[in-house]
Amino acid sequence: MKVELINTGSELLLGRVLNRHQEWLCRRLSDLGYEVARQISVPDGGEAIADAVRESLARADIVITTGGLGPTSDDLTRERIAQLLGRPLVESPQVAGQIRNFFESRNRPVPQRCFVESLVPAGADVLPNLHGTAPGLAFRLNPNPFRNERTSGVLVLLPGPPRELHPMFLEQAVPWLQREAAPSNPCQTLTLRTTGVGESALEEMLEGPLKELCARGLELGYCAKVSEVEVRFAARGDDASGLLASARQIGRSILGAAVFGEGDELLEAVVVRELSRRRATVAVAESCTGGFIAHRLTNVPGSSSVFLAGFVTYANQSKVAAVGVSAETLSRHGAVSEAVAREMAEGARLKSGSDYAIAVTGIAGPGGGTEAKPVGLAYLALAGPAKTEVVRLFNPFDRETFKFATSQQALDLLRRAVLSTPAA
Amino acid sequence: MKVELINTGSELLLGRVLNRHQEWLCRRLSDLGYEVARQISVPDGGEAIADAVRESLARADIVITTGGLGPTSDDLTRERIAQLLGRPLVESPQVAGQIRNFFESRNRPVPQRCFVESLVPAGADVLPNLHGTAPGLAFRLNPNPFRNERTSGVLVLLPGPPRELHPMFLEQAVPWLQREAAPSNPCQTLTLRTTGVGESALEEMLEGPLKELCARGLELGYCAKVSEVEVRFAARGDDASGLLASARQIGRSILGAAVFGEGDELLEAVVVRELSRRRATVAVAESCTGGFIAHRLTNVPGSSSVFLAGFVTYANQSKVAAVGVSAETLSRHGAVSEAVAREMAEGARLKSGSDYAIAVTGIAGPGGGTEAKPVGLAYLALAGPAKTEVVRLFNPFDRETFKFATSQQALDLLRRAVLSTPAA
Repeated sequence: MKVELINTGSELLLGRVLNRHQEWLCRRLSDLGYEVARQISVPDGGEAIADAVRESLARADIVITTGGLGPTSDDLTRERIAQLLGRPLVESPQVAGQIRNFFESRNRPVPQRCFVESLVPAGADVLPNLHGTAPGLAFRLNPNPFRNERTSGVLVLLPGPPRELHPMFLEQAVPWLQREAAPSNPCQTLTLRTTGVGESALEEMLEGPLKELCARGLELGYCAKVSEVEVRFAARGDDASGLLASARQIGRSILGAAVFGEGDELLEAVVVRELSRRRATVAVAESCTGGFIAHRLTNVPGSSSVFLAGFVTYANQSKVAAVGVSAETLSRHGAVSEAVAREMAEGARLKSGSDYAIAVTGIAGPGGGTEAKPVGLAYLALAGPAKTEVVRLFNPFDRETFKFATSQQALDLLRRAVLSTPAA
Repeated sequence: MKVELINTGSELLLGRVLNRHQEWLCRRLSDLGYEVARQISVPDGGEAIADAVRESLARADIVITTGGLGPTSDDLTRERIAQLLGRPLVESPQVAGQIRNFFESRNRPVPQRCFVESLVPAGADVLPNLHGTAPGLAFRLNPNPFRNERTSGVLVLLPGPPRELHPMFLEQAVPWLQREAAPSNPCQTLTLRTTGVGESALEEMLEGPLKELCARGLELGYCAKVSEVEVRFAARGDDASGLLASARQIGRSILGAAVFGEGDELLEAVVVRELSRRRATVAVAESCTGGFIAHRLTNVPGSSSVFLAGFVTYANQSKVAAVGVSAETLSRHGAVSEAVAREMAEGARLKSGSDYAIAVTGIAGPGGGTEAKPVGLAYLALAGPAKTEVVRLFNPFDRETFKFATSQQALDLLRRAVLSTPAA
């Protein structure tokens, strides 16, 4: 089952936004066993959208579009696709009611132009939008009018805003696709997420031990990101589950604690889960990461049971006032030093009454670096019930990558310390 | 001059990486006056790449590819494109010398397989790679064999790694393109970034007053993001600058303070800039946003001169200990209340010695909501030199969207307060 994905939006071609939809949808589609053969971005123009959909339908079994379903004049997908398929637009009282409800439950007047979203091309299935007003639309094309052979096809139109697109795709489009156009040679995948080991080193560690499974059909892929490498196992056919289970077991036994999670698991979610299991708590004191570690931890639902407090001690004075770093240590060693990192962590632990505290102080750049303390230098401290440890890091990247890499190393240090204690 | 961009790489179709090349190249091409009419991603397969290039050459004046120029077995672009264009590959002693130099200057042995990168299709211009080994390749196709009309075309092949692609594009591909295929009908764009007004309401406000400019060729586009809508003006021809200047003036006078910036400006950068201009400082006390406001502010280079401290007071106890909220207020009104937001802001201002302090307390969800205090409810307080104001917000979104929307409203409240005072 070949899929083509069409992302509509002039802002994509003007380079005004990152195409996050491509990554998000392709990842989920390929993990379900669909082969995404092509991805296309076109501007908000009726002809551009219609041309792209027609060409994709001529090549692929499944065509998915994003965007252009809203109420404004540059939202042309619904109307132009109805025209392309020769289907009249019919008002759906059900969708109109949902639009009315959406605004009324928020105590807002209903903008009249939103009712254009209640027009549904004849024969399309409606995928209700539980987080916005424009519904998704799904078409069975039997036969597919744009393919030479007498084959059928499906076309699914999804809205552009991620908070509408994501739940609609997972809860409605996926079941619809699996019913109407199930993957022919489903592929099963399993991803081990690792941190602390480079891509080449991982490959050398796994190559030999996985050789036999690869000969039996296991596919291996590596994807290096900032302070993280994903190891992806894929397999097809009846033996797929068995191959993946064996690969998982071998991978985990060889990589050990370098594997922090599987699939979509985030490092921060693993940290929150492992702290919860031990009824342990954490606080953070951040200088160079500026609140990003606290942000990542508090992104995890339920983090309020383990995360007590964060101190973003950006100014030197706040390092003294908020977490009790001594003015003498600051003036003797400088803010970016092992001694200050240690006092920040111990101070945050004491002030918040937490079991663990992590602290980072460093130079995010682009300014502020010196020869002795260059941009990218950071000290990371972890204060725990038994001891405080301090690690020197060097992450000479742009400012945001620096913050991400440093936060990743901080969360990983905490994870390894927590995992070394028994769960309740 | 229509451009099509082809990004090669199986990881793009497997959803393993974000397509940052698309945003980076499209933005620069459109700012140069080129119209990127389509962007396509294809996997690392010879046929997929050749098909996409042939189809794009049949539609566009300029085709640019990224990736697949390296030395490994999945790097197929060079060879397959030479075949498609019927051009033999000829070894370039100059490129071979650059490859040798690249490794020798790094004291590394030259991997033999790298010399495949010194094969150049006959008639192609070489764009030397100063940050890697695979050169870019630029072709004049006169006539373009894939277009019906007797038109010419150009094809530029660029490497995939960003640190090679970016300088090669800016320093070599751009001058080559401007010489060989200058933009014929350059488009100029201007974006107003707004917050606090919805997309439909914005369109209703602007529709009438911009009618005349639209009749004269102004193109209008809206891009709705979380708690932000971009209004994009585009114009072509001799009158473009005049149209944009008029549109900007009309837009700003109608939208007023709803416009927080233009082009690439981020709300947090505007806040840091306006605080700097007034030599004013800020602190934040965050409960439900969990450090995200501090993170956004500290993403801005130079924020250390205005941002003093952040307090992520997640647990009730930390609201008391870190920013001095009274235990009585907490027990009487609950943590999510106007009174607690006010005390958090005033406490953070006092503790840090800042001019302004913003505080948020709310229910991010998914758990923790009640009928009286549902998920999405938040109180936002701003303590300033003259007074403290508190606003009730309702952002019933998923956890991360809630954090973004709430932080956006907090930064915007601060921005409007700061703007109402004179700059130094």
